[in-house]
Amino acid sequence: MTNSFKEISVQEINQVMQRSHTAFKAFQKKSIEEKSIFLDTIANEIEALGDTLIQKASEETNLPIARLTGERARTTGQLRMFANMLREGSWVEATIDTAIPERTPIPKPDLRKMLIPLGPVVVFGASNFPFAYSTAGGDTASALAAGCSVVVKAHPAHAQTSEMVYQAIKKAISSCNMPDDVFQHVHGTSFESGKALVQAEHTAAVGFTGSTAGGKALVDYSTQRKNPIPVFSEMGSINPVIFLPETLQNSSADLATQYANSITLGMGQFCTNPGLMLAVESPALHTFLDHLSNRIKEVQPAKMLHAGIHAAYEKKSHDALEQDGVTVVEQVSTPINDIEARPIIAQVSGQTFLANPILHEEVFGPYSLMVSCKDEQELITVLKSVSGQLTTTVMGTVHDLENHAQLVDLLPSMAGRILFNGAPTGVEVCASMVHGGPYPATTDSRFTAVGINAVKRWVRPVCYQNWPESLLPLALQNNNPLNIWRMVDNEWKK
Amino acid sequence: MTNSFKEISVQEINQVMQRSHTAFKAFQKKSIEEKSIFLDTIANEIEALGDTLIQKASEETNLPIARLTGERARTTGQLRMFANMLREGSWVEATIDTAIPERTPIPKPDLRKMLIPLGPVVVFGASNFPFAYSTAGGDTASALAAGCSVVVKAHPAHAQTSEMVYQAIKKAISSCNMPDDVFQHVHGTSFESGKALVQAEHTAAVGFTGSTAGGKALVDYSTQRKNPIPVFSEMGSINPVIFLPETLQNSSADLATQYANSITLGMGQFCTNPGLMLAVESPALHTFLDHLSNRIKEVQPAKMLHAGIHAAYEKKSHDALEQDGVTVVEQVSTPINDIEARPIIAQVSGQTFLANPILHEEVFGPYSLMVSCKDEQELITVLKSVSGQLTTTVMGTVHDLENHAQLVDLLPSMAGRILFNGAPTGVEVCASMVHGGPYPATTDSRFTAVGINAVKRWVRPVCYQNWPESLLPLALQNNNPLNIWRMVDNEWKK
Repeated sequence: MTNSFKEISVQEINQVMQRSHTAFKAFQKKSIEEKSIFLDTIANEIEALGDTLIQKASEETNLPIARLTGERARTTGQLRMFANMLREGSWVEATIDTAIPERTPIPKPDLRKMLIPLGPVVVFGASNFPFAYSTAGGDTASALAAGCSVVVKAHPAHAQTSEMVYQAIKKAISSCNMPDDVFQHVHGTSFESGKALVQAEHTAAVGFTGSTAGGKALVDYSTQRKNPIPVFSEMGSINPVIFLPETLQNSSADLATQYANSITLGMGQFCTNPGLMLAVESPALHTFLDHLSNRIKEVQPAKMLHAGIHAAYEKKSHDALEQDGVTVVEQVSTPINDIEARPIIAQVSGQTFLANPILHEEVFGPYSLMVSCKDEQELITVLKSVSGQLTTTVMGTVHDLENHAQLVDLLPSMAGRILFNGAPTGVEVCASMVHGGPYPATTDSRFTAVGINAVKRWVRPVCYQNWPESLLPLALQNNNPLNIWRMVDNEWKK
Repeated sequence: MTNSFKEISVQEINQVMQRSHTAFKAFQKKSIEEKSIFLDTIANEIEALGDTLIQKASEETNLPIARLTGERARTTGQLRMFANMLREGSWVEATIDTAIPERTPIPKPDLRKMLIPLGPVVVFGASNFPFAYSTAGGDTASALAAGCSVVVKAHPAHAQTSEMVYQAIKKAISSCNMPDDVFQHVHGTSFESGKALVQAEHTAAVGFTGSTAGGKALVDYSTQRKNPIPVFSEMGSINPVIFLPETLQNSSADLATQYANSITLGMGQFCTNPGLMLAVESPALHTFLDHLSNRIKEVQPAKMLHAGIHAAYEKKSHDALEQDGVTVVEQVSTPINDIEARPIIAQVSGQTFLANPILHEEVFGPYSLMVSCKDEQELITVLKSVSGQLTTTVMGTVHDLENHAQLVDLLPSMAGRILFNGAPTGVEVCASMVHGGPYPATTDSRFTAVGINAVKRWVRPVCYQNWPESLLPLALQNNNPLNIWRMVDNEWKK
């Protein structure tokens, strides 16, 4: 992947991170309202780019205008959500234990705790979300909200889109009188630039969305540091969907329509794409697959994000279909041009799936593999053999769930989000969303990349003991000048 | 270090962790009240061991009876604190976003999030807290409270004490009808057993308090796993204390008494022992050091925890004193027996300290190094050269703080807890305590090992999307049957 932007050198990266560190310190002096307005202004400036931005993104990513328009709304919505989170203020987890000077044998000191930002954060733009997980996406918005400075490495596949969003952020920096380097934007296509960004002295944390190999490499770079830093890599996920018998019997046509849409939405280029389906062998399962086949046939091939992703899809789907015991349920046969993808549904027995690790790998694109199991016990064994996931879905009646208690019990241990009768491809941006999951879905299952709690990736607690009131941060002062929810002497108070 | 207990084999460790995993699943079915009573009962059973436990611990660790009696109270207090945390219930961070079916273009699903336990936790008992950081210490209590099963590797230096506490826990397991293997206790002195405990398939997280080398090794073992797991190692800290000029001028005698006590408390065998003092060169600093010297002289040498720690103290303090430019302010000259330690105060210039990394290393024991700086700027440079810390303390008047704003600004970035006019050696067990800090004080500065938030090390969030009400965990059900604080549609409610 190449573009016209100048590749950054390792030496320049160290200078960028040094400037980011200086800007971080200045940014910490800004008030909460100044930071909130800054986030709102970035959203406004992105909107002010108008159709030009959407058109450029569509040219670079092959994503349709409607999808990109929706994604832009999500991106500006996220920025405004974090601005509101700052104003609401309880996210800092202010906790106060007041002194008991008369306690024996030792007086109890005054102790006050809150979350503070880690420092400069490096964000690697994702290829599949040119707005929402890229330059001004969720990682950037949450890190700025935390009070961190940010350095984004543009994804080379949509570098011009990234550059346009960067210009919007620069305008917001200028009009809000923020430190110039609170946000910086670099272009790099080499492993060396990624490594240097993770290993620069002043880098305090890293956010990444992409391949398993890429995500693991960033973690390795961090562990080689003198002081390892948190690396939040969101990597592969095949997002298992379990179809239970009663619902298959009752609703196979509706299920097929719903899943044909979910599997092929955005040509399957979502982290939450359902790449694995599971069911117990039955006539109803065959009926479902017939319906699914009919629905998939109707899907028009469309261009993938870029040539690299297309080539990987061709290779990985080809490899999967070559495995012993794998049969094709449907493969769209329309002639394809250029970097278009053909949706594929494949099928394999539980026993064969269990024996072949290749079938457990993600095929990024409009591909899904149905594992037909001989009975519920085999289905449970298959489910246990699958590694950590972003999502796991169960399609069933309430009666189905009650009849499969052992299986349902397993689900929370498998994934960050578990769904009942839905498709995992929609990710709601809200406080209760978890976009994250056990390794290797992400490198740290304790954090989400979507929703207000994404801010918790970029902070750590600090405790002030007997600190003079006048020098305490506002969130910890006695009279609660920010009027935020706090835990005071073990009680929630405002 | 040897004792009469049988060393566990690698094969046995895998069986222990398999049993822990089975017990974990059974433990998850227990109610909140059952778990609370279990924690309370462990506390009761430890108290029921009476003086026999204290005497055994004193024999094994050389710690005085009064100290151990206080530490036992802290340990049982911690267990009861976590029992109460379970009853209060807000720690699960229950968050609910209700559905908006009529939303366009896409209906909003019902999303509900809470924290769930990670799985079996391995705890390595610490040598310096035979109760509070050992068998039934903070790691065990917080992990059980989280809903995890626990496997403790007894510290070999107090294996019999550990075994007695294990018997108390076993009684509580039996009388509370808990799964037998929800807590298991193993003895191991080899690197191999530590490695196997971290790398066993079913181990989900690790807690460790001890040396930097030991803590880093456990992290390395985890990164070698197919699925790396969280390792919380609390390692070395030299806990800098800055003496500002006005307070040195006003209160040198009082400061000397306070710090002579803090440096030699428990023969300096605390993670928060002030091993580094910093001040700008002045006549008042000399007066302070004269007073400190007089106070230190009065301290009686006492036995250290075990021969290994004593030998390390002898070697590391000797090495430090051998460095060019280091002078001895006071070294207790009383003849010592066996494994007794002599308190030492040393002094060095800022310039020499900056140039010699050996002087930055922790000398675990009653040792503290005063770095006398030529001016405030050098003091700031010295402070910036010091790695991540558990605590940093500033001794000063409020006027001093105002006069040293640049220095005071630095403090939150250095440590998990910052103190004003106190000694870091007391660690209060409460909600606002942070016992943790930037690397290498701990491997993850985002978590505390003391206080109720220690529970957050052993959990991760899971989101339930459109889940049937009857199958939701109690914490997420509509009518709030646990009557806990929750965030519902972005508002805190009970």
